[in-house]
Amino acid sequence: MTAPSLDAEPIDLAHVQSRIDQALHNFLDAKTRAARNRSLPLDVPTALRDFLDAGGKRLRPLLCVLGWHAAGGHGDDEAVIQTAAALEMFHAFCLIHDDIMDNSATRRGRPTVHRTLAVRHGHDQLGASAAILIGDMALAWSDELMHSAGHSPHRLTALRRIIDVMRQEVIYGQYLDLITPLGPITDHQAALRVIEFKTAKYTVERPLHCGATLADADPDLLTVLSRYALPLGEAFQLRDDLLGVYGRPDDTGKPVLDDLREGKHTVLIALAAQRADATQRRLLDTLVGSPDLDLDGAARIRTVLDATGARATVEDMIATRRAQALTALDAVPYPQPAAAALGHIAARAVERTS
Amino acid sequence: MTAPSLDAEPIDLAHVQSRIDQALHNFLDAKTRAARNRSLPLDVPTALRDFLDAGGKRLRPLLCVLGWHAAGGHGDDEAVIQTAAALEMFHAFCLIHDDIMDNSATRRGRPTVHRTLAVRHGHDQLGASAAILIGDMALAWSDELMHSAGHSPHRLTALRRIIDVMRQEVIYGQYLDLITPLGPITDHQAALRVIEFKTAKYTVERPLHCGATLADADPDLLTVLSRYALPLGEAFQLRDDLLGVYGRPDDTGKPVLDDLREGKHTVLIALAAQRADATQRRLLDTLVGSPDLDLDGAARIRTVLDATGARATVEDMIATRRAQALTALDAVPYPQPAAAALGHIAARAVERTS
Repeated sequence: MTAPSLDAEPIDLAHVQSRIDQALHNFLDAKTRAARNRSLPLDVPTALRDFLDAGGKRLRPLLCVLGWHAAGGHGDDEAVIQTAAALEMFHAFCLIHDDIMDNSATRRGRPTVHRTLAVRHGHDQLGASAAILIGDMALAWSDELMHSAGHSPHRLTALRRIIDVMRQEVIYGQYLDLITPLGPITDHQAALRVIEFKTAKYTVERPLHCGATLADADPDLLTVLSRYALPLGEAFQLRDDLLGVYGRPDDTGKPVLDDLREGKHTVLIALAAQRADATQRRLLDTLVGSPDLDLDGAARIRTVLDATGARATVEDMIATRRAQALTALDAVPYPQPAAAALGHIAARAVERTS
Repeated sequence: MTAPSLDAEPIDLAHVQSRIDQALHNFLDAKTRAARNRSLPLDVPTALRDFLDAGGKRLRPLLCVLGWHAAGGHGDDEAVIQTAAALEMFHAFCLIHDDIMDNSATRRGRPTVHRTLAVRHGHDQLGASAAILIGDMALAWSDELMHSAGHSPHRLTALRRIIDVMRQEVIYGQYLDLITPLGPITDHQAALRVIEFKTAKYTVERPLHCGATLADADPDLLTVLSRYALPLGEAFQLRDDLLGVYGRPDDTGKPVLDDLREGKHTVLIALAAQRADATQRRLLDTLVGSPDLDLDGAARIRTVLDATGARATVEDMIATRRAQALTALDAVPYPQPAAAALGHIAARAVERTS
């Protein structure tokens, strides 16, 4: 059920995305000029510009803008776009540090920031250190983008409350992700908790809340948005886990062996381990997390994931959560263009191949 | 010249410091309880509590409180104390990441965060990753401390402007510090620039500005505070550089070889390299930055620093800057208790042995 709306023009997501990208470019261009004028290291803004230009789904900033529309936001949306850009800059911080922690060589089909700088300066440790600082700067600049967006002090205060919660959640989520491999491989509840903190809240719920807050949404609206957001966020991450094992590197931009070599205890792996017979379990224990894993070994892991039905169960979990998200969306009379765009985003997040 | 003041009670710096520490404890105790209730990793608040309890001069938070007094702040200072605590939490972020980048084993006489966690989990890479995230959380929590201090939206907006600038400065300063060793060892201008960004602005000027802003200081007052802050900050770092080479590990809490092994191009080293004869220069080029440097090698470096007069010149630079700071302090009619405390802090920052 959706209510009639006076402002029924569809939301052009591609146009919103290009405005978000433009806001990021404008900000980093200004930072590059300022660095040049003050003889500060151009590495910092340049690395961030290259990182953001390499791609990315812009899911979080788009959801921020859609949260604003869902809460009835209309008229001048410049401050919303800039806040959305700030969320993407924050995400750059997360990914740059994540790549150092995972020791990943590529991201979005290009060398990671720490690898790029290690090669430029001929020194691995220097590359990692520089990337830690460039990540830190992305976080600082995310704040500056948000604070210079022109929000009223009252709205900014409400926004900051959500941002502060979101940051704590995602950092705890990353920490859980880091230590989960120390626990039993069969613990799919632990894997679901990582998803809750690291993805469902961070990637979907909080961006929607940020946008809605900028349209002065009340707490009830934030609660109903969560009913769409949390199952969708879980479905998004479950798809990500499947793509990490079954995706084509040309689509995902990262080597298909990375996730398996890292030994992440995903729901997929946990379910397979629960159901594995002794031979299958030995194979999982030996190969998942092995730094020497090769393509043949990955194929053998996939055989176990298929044979135990773990892959099919995860596909079922995705479908269930997607349906929950869409049901929650239908239950609330959001303005029609916002509802349509949120439905589109749900499909895109769950059906993707990259 | 100082103007008479109605509120002429001296500022009890030890008491201020204990209130700042109490604010940090209260915040982290609440975070520990919340983590326990939600089964989130206690490593994070515990590591930060241990880190902050291990010591530290609390120079930045004290200067924040003194900036407030200098700008005529009086009455309820709870929000100022909590903001000061937020600056110390931010500093924890800087140091934890710095120790990873420098690969330091000890800080404040205890194992660094990444070493502690590497030992706890029996895995070096995991220790570094956990410390990256704990540093990130310190930054996020620094914001939360500041935003929950009870500032009016208007004051918070003014405060955030300074905080955003400060963060950019210190991260650029760290980046310059990282890449300066790639340049010529004789470049003492480059070393002075690192000091400007990494210490003078970050450690002294911006904390004073933060506090003054909370007393609604106008831009002119911020400018005159900078005349005290910047030379004092330079003197502070020059003293730090001397302590890194000549300090007693029992006082400084870090091994005396760390700075020299790291090969930081300090003003001290640059001046010595400029004045060195061929033999001395060869010794500096070989030993400064050598990861295998031993106590005997350090003693030989010190002999060159003494013989070239570099040590004496740096002592002169410290004395000159200290005098500049005190002259700037006398030139402005700050409330007498603030002026007295700022004079005391200047002495403590420059004369210290740790």
